[in-house]
Amino acid sequence: MTHVHHDAFVIKTHGRGPVEVTDRVRDIVAASHVGTGLVHVFCHHTSASMLITENADPVVRSDLERFLARLAPDGDPAFEHVAEGPDDMPAHVRSALLGPSVTVPVRDGRLGLGTWQGIFLYEHRRGGHRRRVTVTVMGTGR
Amino acid sequence: MTHVHHDAFVIKTHGRGPVEVTDRVRDIVAASHVGTGLVHVFCHHTSASMLITENADPVVRSDLERFLARLAPDGDPAFEHVAEGPDDMPAHVRSALLGPSVTVPVRDGRLGLGTWQGIFLYEHRRGGHRRRVTVTVMGTGR
Amino acid sequence: MTHVHHDAFVIKTHGRGPVEVTDRVRDIVAASHVGTGLVHVFCHHTSASMLITENADPVVRSDLERFLARLAPDGDPAFEHVAEGPDDMPAHVRSALLGPSVTVPVRDGRLGLGTWQGIFLYEHRRGGHRRRVTVTVMGTGR
Repeated sequence: MTHVHHDAFVIKTHGRGPVEVTDRVRDIVAASHVGTGLVHVFCHHTSASMLITENADPVVRSDLERFLARLAPDGDPAFEHVAEGPDDMPAHVRSALLGPSVTVPVRDGRLGLGTWQGIFLYEHRRGGHRRRVTVTVMGTGR
Repeated sequence: MTHVHHDAFVIKTHGRGPVEVTDRVRDIVAASHVGTGLVHVFCHHTSASMLITENADPVVRSDLERFLARLAPDGDPAFEHVAEGPDDMPAHVRSALLGPSVTVPVRDGRLGLGTWQGIFLYEHRRGGHRRRVTVTVMGTGR
Repeated sequence: MTHVHHDAFVIKTHGRGPVEVTDRVRDIVAASHVGTGLVHVFCHHTSASMLITENADPVVRSDLERFLARLAPDGDPAFEHVAEGPDDMPAHVRSALLGPSVTVPVRDGRLGLGTWQGIFLYEHRRGGHRRRVTVTVMGTGR
């Protein structure tokens, strides 16, 4: 018998950078009664992303932010889409590169991340926003 | 009861840039009789991608194209794979960065995109090509 | 009737670069008895990635490596996370950009890749590592 379990939450961000959501996803997997399958985490926005990266040393995230800020700098004169400010188009670029979703295996009813992997919502705008996330767990029942 | 629904289509591109396919994917989801689950959209090529980005202001797409053209310029002397021309290897680089597929939640039988999200096939070559796309919808029946 | 089939393997890498795993994934799909659905390939590490790219001309992969080495160079003075060496943080950056998983359609019990597509585990560290990969096949039975 296959189960499909949906849940959703909102993350209130406080400016640019990653916010860990691993525990929230883990709890939804536990509540889903899926034993073996996949969990998909989707962000409904084009200036935020879902990302799996190292969750131990926070300096990894500040270094990643430095890399992205250099790759797609705010106020880039190449960009014409500046309606919402100098960080608007760079946020869309980061979102295209990192993508809006991650998918992770579920085994024995548990989120199958590696030891150092965490799931993050990455806010790409300078200001805080309310970001909607949908989590879908699919697989055989426990 | 779980349904798995497959469909496929071909996009005839007319040179580099994104082509919106949101309505095609939406129609396949509607025809699938899946109520709750996921839809996966896959491009069978290594010089084109699937991408979710802003679908309101077309300038977002022209700015994204400017960004990618600067990041992986045609005729880059670092590249040896030039068999099909100066845009061949840059197209493979773009394809590696953006990826060949997107996965989106399905809820209440509908494609669960955010308000400003659209699904695009991104042609990375300068010339037009026929690009095959497979759509898989999986989940509980309506 | 829906099947969910899980398998896992370890790739012993010998330094930076892509290692093809298409045949391993193809064999797992064949053994899964899934006829129509999806296969998800996940790498449990934050300094290695899963990638779909051209599998015919190996120069595509060496050019891609040259591109990534220029984009995120080892020893970049912008990075503070250097605990494991000058290639540590660049490996996390590459991993964020390429992502930890790929998802491919399964049709008629076969891996639905395009003609020139191959699945690769990309080792981003300079040294060799043991990299764990989980493969999940989900869909209707054959």
